[in-house]
Amino acid sequence: MNNKLLVLGTIAYDSIETPNIKTGKILGGCATYIGLAASMFKTNCCIVSIVGEDFEKSHIDLLESKRLDLSGVEIVDNEKTFYWKGKYHENLNKRTTLETQLNVLAKFYPKIPKNFVDSSIIMLGNVDPNIQLAVLDQIEQPKLIVMDTMNFWIESYRDKLNDLIKKVDLISINDEEALQLTSCQSIIEAAYKIQNMGPKYVIIKKGEHGAILISKDRVFSIPSLPIKKISDPTGAGDSFIGGVVGYLSQCQNISFDLIKGGVVVGTSIASYTVQEFGTKALEEITANQLEQRINDFKHLTKFEIIKTNLHE
Amino acid sequence: MNNKLLVLGTIAYDSIETPNIKTGKILGGCATYIGLAASMFKTNCCIVSIVGEDFEKSHIDLLESKRLDLSGVEIVDNEKTFYWKGKYHENLNKRTTLETQLNVLAKFYPKIPKNFVDSSIIMLGNVDPNIQLAVLDQIEQPKLIVMDTMNFWIESYRDKLNDLIKKVDLISINDEEALQLTSCQSIIEAAYKIQNMGPKYVIIKKGEHGAILISKDRVFSIPSLPIKKISDPTGAGDSFIGGVVGYLSQCQNISFDLIKGGVVVGTSIASYTVQEFGTKALEEITANQLEQRINDFKHLTKFEIIKTNLHE
Repeated sequence: MNNKLLVLGTIAYDSIETPNIKTGKILGGCATYIGLAASMFKTNCCIVSIVGEDFEKSHIDLLESKRLDLSGVEIVDNEKTFYWKGKYHENLNKRTTLETQLNVLAKFYPKIPKNFVDSSIIMLGNVDPNIQLAVLDQIEQPKLIVMDTMNFWIESYRDKLNDLIKKVDLISINDEEALQLTSCQSIIEAAYKIQNMGPKYVIIKKGEHGAILISKDRVFSIPSLPIKKISDPTGAGDSFIGGVVGYLSQCQNISFDLIKGGVVVGTSIASYTVQEFGTKALEEITANQLEQRINDFKHLTKFEIIKTNLHE
Repeated sequence: MNNKLLVLGTIAYDSIETPNIKTGKILGGCATYIGLAASMFKTNCCIVSIVGEDFEKSHIDLLESKRLDLSGVEIVDNEKTFYWKGKYHENLNKRTTLETQLNVLAKFYPKIPKNFVDSSIIMLGNVDPNIQLAVLDQIEQPKLIVMDTMNFWIESYRDKLNDLIKKVDLISINDEEALQLTSCQSIIEAAYKIQNMGPKYVIIKKGEHGAILISKDRVFSIPSLPIKKISDPTGAGDSFIGGVVGYLSQCQNISFDLIKGGVVVGTSIASYTVQEFGTKALEEITANQLEQRINDFKHLTKFEIIKTNLHE
């Protein structure tokens, strides 16, 4: 398979409040986090998104310096970039949206650059399912279609979302949303129910509790890396799945075992992201640091059982 | 070290309600779960507890058939066995105590059988810290002292609990109680804070999210086995730590690496316990089934990372 990775999603300005800090407008958006995470790998990654004329040149330069192809990013004159303002509560596990300005996003119709219609991996970041579906209409036989979504689309765009879920190979969704989508009480039950809706692979993201990957007959589960001080959870899920698809796009094929490796790599990258506000940690992480963290992860989860001396 | 394991804790009758089922009075108590789990291993396990004259002969026979030494279990005439009635709410993650009858427990003073004062491992199950401390006054240089506790003692017996925590080598505590004990917001932060209170090793039990083990300079984290249908979480934490100490009591020494193995074994046993009400699954589990589940666990968490192709 070729190493082309197409990433659909938002490029945004975010304002983030935590109990200790309020940021001003900083770079955000799921495509930004996914792209930055994926760009650590030798992938050929194209972003499909939209921004307004207020989008800063320095941010374009940043994304291009990470070898991201921005030919799919539309810049609209006389309009503003999508803006999100959110607040995290005491233990950073819960967040409230304080403000959303759709701005350019209200008229977004994705146009896939010709050079990327044959991408091996299509990553549909969390946007309106109609927009996610519009991407699928423009592409040629990818090896893997991946999607993320969120509570708003589950509540309000359920039919379209179901259409989309049928068409993807891998869905990455957080635990609360998986329960919401399936009306299940248990995460594992929810994972299998989602698998029955279409995707061959389901990843349930559990934040500080790690992630679970299932297929029809296999299951893989990992904890997250223990981070003593989390600054800002924004983008953790996006940089996680960005790591997964970045990793996979340099593989020769797609398999459950390879996705397992991707989940470990994605978890390792996300553990960096949350240590600083916004994209800062993700921008700065080096190849050596990521390899070190993957190594930490191996140690974290490695065990041996001595021959157990059991009563028959 | 010898393979003697001394288990302090309650032997009780429980009534359990879940959204679907109400049990009558069934066998329960932390010492029961710990003992049954530990007894899977070739350990020499003595239970120190107290019951009333209502305690059924068939339950004594059951425990003895599992090779548990009951010489430390006092049977009090004209008194009733400790009784607990509890109710689990919808997703079984929250429970409410409906009734507690202390009965014999109100006058419990543990007496350690002579033959077990030199036990290598002392397991102080969740009871009044004064009783846990009274055991430590009667024993000779064990290799490992392990304790569990719960919210009630953290709230109301804090000074005694702090005295006890200073004296143990390993504490096993659930995530909510760890946060309560330390006033921390993060589980990892709480684990290190508890480690600073005295114990060389700290295990934080996270229920369906697995467990974390830390020492001053090492950390180990595992998910739990994905169980599609949980019937009754009662005794999960006790059978977990029972598995840990049972496993360790057949080891030649105590180390972080050996405790890691114990955590995997304990998690595997607890995954059985929750599949049936009360002690039923724990009574019935065979050596082959446990070995199979440990094997499932290895598969659940095993991964390989292909050589990552990262940008420098």
